[in-house]
Amino acid sequence: MLENLTSAQLKKFTLKELLALCEEAREIIISTVMKNGGHLSSNLGMVELTVALHYVFDFPKDKLVFDVGHQCYTHKLLSGRVSEFVTLRQKNGLSGFPKRSESEYDSYNTGHAGTSVSAALGLAKARDIKGSDSNIIAVIGDGSFNNGLVYEAFNSMRLLGTNILLILNDNGMSITPTVGSMHEYLEILSSDMAHNAKKDRHARIFERFGFSYDGVYDGNNLESMISKLTEIKNRLHHESVILHVLTKKGKGYSFCEDDPEATHGISAGASNIKEYSNILGNTLVRLAETNKNIVAVTAAMTPSLGLSEFFEKFPERAVDVGICEEHATILCASMAAEGLKPYYAVYSTFLQRSFDEILIDICSQNLPVTLCIDRAGISGADGETHQGVFDLSFLSLIPNLTVAVPKDIDEFEKMLEFSENFNSPLAIRYPREGKASFGNTEDIVCGKWQTLIKCNGKYLILACGERALTIAYEAGERLKTSNIAVSIVNARFVKPLDATLLNGIAEKYIITIEDNMLIGGFGSLIDQYFCGSDKVIKNFAYSDSFITHGGVSELMKELNVSSEAVSDYILKNENR
Amino acid sequence: MLENLTSAQLKKFTLKELLALCEEAREIIISTVMKNGGHLSSNLGMVELTVALHYVFDFPKDKLVFDVGHQCYTHKLLSGRVSEFVTLRQKNGLSGFPKRSESEYDSYNTGHAGTSVSAALGLAKARDIKGSDSNIIAVIGDGSFNNGLVYEAFNSMRLLGTNILLILNDNGMSITPTVGSMHEYLEILSSDMAHNAKKDRHARIFERFGFSYDGVYDGNNLESMISKLTEIKNRLHHESVILHVLTKKGKGYSFCEDDPEATHGISAGASNIKEYSNILGNTLVRLAETNKNIVAVTAAMTPSLGLSEFFEKFPERAVDVGICEEHATILCASMAAEGLKPYYAVYSTFLQRSFDEILIDICSQNLPVTLCIDRAGISGADGETHQGVFDLSFLSLIPNLTVAVPKDIDEFEKMLEFSENFNSPLAIRYPREGKASFGNTEDIVCGKWQTLIKCNGKYLILACGERALTIAYEAGERLKTSNIAVSIVNARFVKPLDATLLNGIAEKYIITIEDNMLIGGFGSLIDQYFCGSDKVIKNFAYSDSFITHGGVSELMKELNVSSEAVSDYILKNENR
Repeated sequence: MLENLTSAQLKKFTLKELLALCEEAREIIISTVMKNGGHLSSNLGMVELTVALHYVFDFPKDKLVFDVGHQCYTHKLLSGRVSEFVTLRQKNGLSGFPKRSESEYDSYNTGHAGTSVSAALGLAKARDIKGSDSNIIAVIGDGSFNNGLVYEAFNSMRLLGTNILLILNDNGMSITPTVGSMHEYLEILSSDMAHNAKKDRHARIFERFGFSYDGVYDGNNLESMISKLTEIKNRLHHESVILHVLTKKGKGYSFCEDDPEATHGISAGASNIKEYSNILGNTLVRLAETNKNIVAVTAAMTPSLGLSEFFEKFPERAVDVGICEEHATILCASMAAEGLKPYYAVYSTFLQRSFDEILIDICSQNLPVTLCIDRAGISGADGETHQGVFDLSFLSLIPNLTVAVPKDIDEFEKMLEFSENFNSPLAIRYPREGKASFGNTEDIVCGKWQTLIKCNGKYLILACGERALTIAYEAGERLKTSNIAVSIVNARFVKPLDATLLNGIAEKYIITIEDNMLIGGFGSLIDQYFCGSDKVIKNFAYSDSFITHGGVSELMKELNVSSEAVSDYILKNENR
Repeated sequence: MLENLTSAQLKKFTLKELLALCEEAREIIISTVMKNGGHLSSNLGMVELTVALHYVFDFPKDKLVFDVGHQCYTHKLLSGRVSEFVTLRQKNGLSGFPKRSESEYDSYNTGHAGTSVSAALGLAKARDIKGSDSNIIAVIGDGSFNNGLVYEAFNSMRLLGTNILLILNDNGMSITPTVGSMHEYLEILSSDMAHNAKKDRHARIFERFGFSYDGVYDGNNLESMISKLTEIKNRLHHESVILHVLTKKGKGYSFCEDDPEATHGISAGASNIKEYSNILGNTLVRLAETNKNIVAVTAAMTPSLGLSEFFEKFPERAVDVGICEEHATILCASMAAEGLKPYYAVYSTFLQRSFDEILIDICSQNLPVTLCIDRAGISGADGETHQGVFDLSFLSLIPNLTVAVPKDIDEFEKMLEFSENFNSPLAIRYPREGKASFGNTEDIVCGKWQTLIKCNGKYLILACGERALTIAYEAGERLKTSNIAVSIVNARFVKPLDATLLNGIAEKYIITIEDNMLIGGFGSLIDQYFCGSDKVIKNFAYSDSFITHGGVSELMKELNVSSEAVSDYILKNENR
């Protein structure tokens, strides 16, 4: 039924047909995600609500904003993208997130939590200014509801004098179970489904901000969603409404319903490579056994960061604050100010949200917080909003901050040991998966690099991090067949640079490789260092544009950060 | 009485003596601020409350965190810094903000709004982990209370299971009158001072987050503050308390009480130089008369950004969202997504808070938002947390963003005219005060620089922005006496660079000057551009450390971004 379905046809469907449509969507989502990877349980929970939205509202004239955006699969299926859906999250295929450039049905791109209410208010304000009459709807999960941006948007609701529908899709989870007082409050509202007088009293928080509160309803009940949305649609002319619905994460697929946490994100293909997160967890647990000052802070993704055991063993020294990245950063800074040794573990893309707090709270006070930055470099299938390719650039510009990049998992462990007694701000960035060891593991000294291969040739590669080092080794192997000798250095600190090593370089050609943007990254620091010298520097890094979704190595190849690109450069240089 | 006053002595004072102390503090604050500049009305409002805090609590064992931190003057006077107070905000003198390195009484450095609750929670959590028994107190104004960080901290209050005292210092103002629903809510609480039953009902929002609410009291009544704080001190063993007090901004100085907005910040010395903000306001008003798509967004500082007239003339196209910088950024992005032309005016230092939203919401969607970045470069007397010296670095690493720097006020106007039809993200950064014109004003073409002085010598200066150009001209004049010819280029775009001009440079020596950090800034882009060429590049920019408070030009000189430094470099080079 979904194939070639138009909005006009959908609106004529009977309830029975709509329910069949839901099942079809569910099947497509399950089969595609099991093959391509993606967000499974959250999308399964959203099927009926999305069908109801498309039945009641008129997209793309009406505008729909998904908070974070990972739950938009049914919306994609209902807006003319069924046949392309097999390409979900694949290079040149459909994005796993809303994307304006992909469809006029995608009103606003999202990726990070808590932005949808602000975005919906902006769309609504623009509608008012232009004098049009579209409806603006945002869908937000209870996990995102913790983020401070939501509060900032709420605070200006009345001020903006515009009306939106905010659907609070409450499944009790973000990636992990939702935490915090707002979540407890939502639970109170949910438990009062039958007691309307009491509920009205409880709902005052939302009314205070200018919303009429309406809830709680079963978001997986298609019929009730259709009638409720139809009713609300008429109210949107004169008021903003918050519709609180409960949905079941993983709905309709028992495997997911039973374990929504494990099935929030599914990776494509088998993976028996090691994960850096395991080392973070194991090492911090080991260090924390004897060092009572060690504390760990996360923002809603403790297990995927490898810290579940730490949280179990040291609950009094572990805090998951929910999706509140800025608050997490300041908590670390202030605990460090009182002599503790905080570790803030976070994905690279989400660290961007704490830029000001890293700069002001941590670094301008020179406090010994360690940032453990996972999913750094190209993260792959989630696309533009999730690539961790900016961190070396936005971190190295901050005074007092030391920036380290381990060459492999063994070295990451050494860096964590090093961090324990390092008394200044420290950032360690690493990809998700990695190689156990390139060998040559040694204790870490701040700013000291490691020469891994020393030749007496013309070429030296400064490789920053595991992916870069893999490329360097592969390029070196390939060049051996042409009798070209290449020295390789493990440039494990981006800041400070190893001036002693740099000053002693005999090779004329210096090649930098990194899994980061060219502008402001490791290579640019080397360019600056050697500016005016007679060295010839070549940087392999990502050029100045956003990196779409795709496989990690296929994207790196396309972006010319690959062993082929490096060996080609050297061969061409030889033959010039 | 303040001179050499110890905490032990203060605690023995009678009420009459304490009141006399307040008057003495007030006099010192007024006389110092009128001479040195600084935050006047907010500090005058805080005198009694601060004296009461020092009377009741035991600093530095107990910890006091000031939100933003500009209201800490009485605290400085009461913690052994009376004799140094004459040096307030002067180079090597007392900071106008809390500073851990200055005194053990300053528990946590602040500067940007909304961080105090998170910081207090971190200090409290650290206290619990260490098993000590200090009291943790945060003082926050109602303006900061709009910021999303406060909500994030509230959300994790129960989760952290720790107790703090949060004093809500409600004067109805931030720099401008406070806006938004939270402010309206505080007004409701304030208006109910006498009606306790009703108040209890209203106060549920705070209780929901784990605070016992206590208010509203007169924060300028010393006696009542002392008895209230004494009572609360005992309750902090078993609960967190939010104490809501009303204070009068500018209290005790009629000049301030009458116009607290104008006396929030006082500048030292006379100023008849032009301000860029006037041009922003006048030009946007002019453009908006005919272009109905232009909207302006600010975060709580409309007048100092020059936009008062715009807000009066086009209220339906102007939004001040309060101190919610991230929300403001997304509002602009989403309005642009619907075809409007938004201008977000903000100080450079506060733009740091929107790094993620500039990157994701504006630039990854390539939306035509114009960032008007005031107080860029060294801002002077407010110190580390307020210098606008990072923006060229953190902006130029973002794809799709064009970064422009006007050479003078006339060119700023041209850039605003250029922005009207520029259909991509654009940042324009400028200092507070400036020169009307260096002459040679011409229409702006994206990425095109302007040669101002063309010589056939060895030296060429690429000057980025007005302060850099002033240095370039001064150095050029000085070098004329040595018969050294220097070409000068107005490098008005940091991104994209003018490749045509760069490729045509005949001079061997290229000198870059900018009012920004060296790492990641304009100079580093030039270094990267010429890496491997035979040009000799010299960068004048700020080296990698935080810049303390002081006068703009004295700081620039000390940091070797000055005409003397430039001409010395060239002279030395000649004589080598």
